Amino acid sequence: MAKVINEKIILGLDPGTNVMGYGIIAIKGSKLDLIQFGVIHLSKYEGHELKLKKIFERVLSLLDEYHPDEVALEAPFFGKNVQSMLKLGRAQGVSMAAALYRGIPIIEYAPKKVKQSVTGNGNASKEQVAKMLMTLLGIKELPKLLDATDALAVALCHHFQKGEMKSKSKTWEGFVKENPKRVTK
Amino acid sequence: MAKVINEKIILGLDPGTNVMGYGIIAIKGSKLDLIQFGVIHLSKYEGHELKLKKIFERVLSLLDEYHPDEVALEAPFFGKNVQSMLKLGRAQGVSMAAALYRGIPIIEYAPKKVKQSVTGNGNASKEQVAKMLMTLLGIKELPKLLDATDALAVALCHHFQKGEMKSKSKTWEGFVKENPKRVTK
Repeated sequence: MAKVINEKIILGLDPGTNVMGYGIIAIKGSKLDLIQFGVIHLSKYEGHELKLKKIFERVLSLLDEYHPDEVALEAPFFGKNVQSMLKLGRAQGVSMAAALYRGIPIIEYAPKKVKQSVTGNGNASKEQVAKMLMTLLGIKELPKLLDATDALAVALCHHFQKGEMKSKSKTWEGFVKENPKRVTK
Repeated sequence: MAKVINEKIILGLDPGTNVMGYGIIAIKGSKLDLIQFGVIHLSKYEGHELKLKKIFERVLSLLDEYHPDEVALEAPFFGKNVQSMLKLGRAQGVSMAAALYRGIPIIEYAPKKVKQSVTGNGNASKEQVAKMLMTLLGIKELPKLLDATDALAVALCHHFQKGEMKSKSKTWEGFVKENPKRVTK
């Protein structure tokens, strides 16, 4: 009997009002592949409404090009002020609407959870997260904008939650032992 | 030569995370007609994501049923705390995404602006706004939830901005003189 290999594509999104990061990974059995990652520049568009329209359209086109099975969203639950949270909420809302419209499940992760999951340290810097991703996904060169790696990180975080590569240890020592490659230096 | 009557349909939305109000008016020349108004109950849906999905679907179906030319959104810019503003931002975001997806322009109004425009008083109560709408649109009975009249009010506010019924007076006395019907008692 042929062995069934479970293949899954995850789209990670880091919505913002000026730059939006995205990252797509494919999981084939225990193999992890980087499909694509990058940023969508929004500051060039004038007006909040046009930015939201562009976010919606770009997320839709990512969904239609890569057909992810799940969308993982980096979603901070607290921010500096109510104004910026309203704007961020809108950017998240239109991103989520695109996924909801295509019937693709969305899972949200707090930034701390993403960092914890990828590097083992909830307070890791963006650079530390990026470095870990380079190792895990064989990325040769870092992108200029780390919003792209942030988005990849949330996709990876979502994958780790699914159990296959999930740590069973509750202690830091156990985590290091189980995930030697996932500890930043 | 036949006279061309400018007909326009405006959908007013008052997005919220538990109740969402909507109101549709038609403007035919100088005639103002109430088409429909009501609320979408969201508290019955468990989970934030499902609520957003329902908002998106219901707004899309309103757009497809009534074919509004413009969507007017009641959008507070400040709120109690960052958490509630993030949630509200998302609800606004998915509503806006539906309109953007159908290519319908969205115009936002702050609550104070809506009240000012409809009643002449930026600090009017929900009940005062509702009463004015009853007069202007010939509504016989008030709905239980005033989110519906709030949504109608923003549609009307948007119509008033277009000039036809716009007050030219900067003073309260001038407003009363020009708009005797629009002053709440």
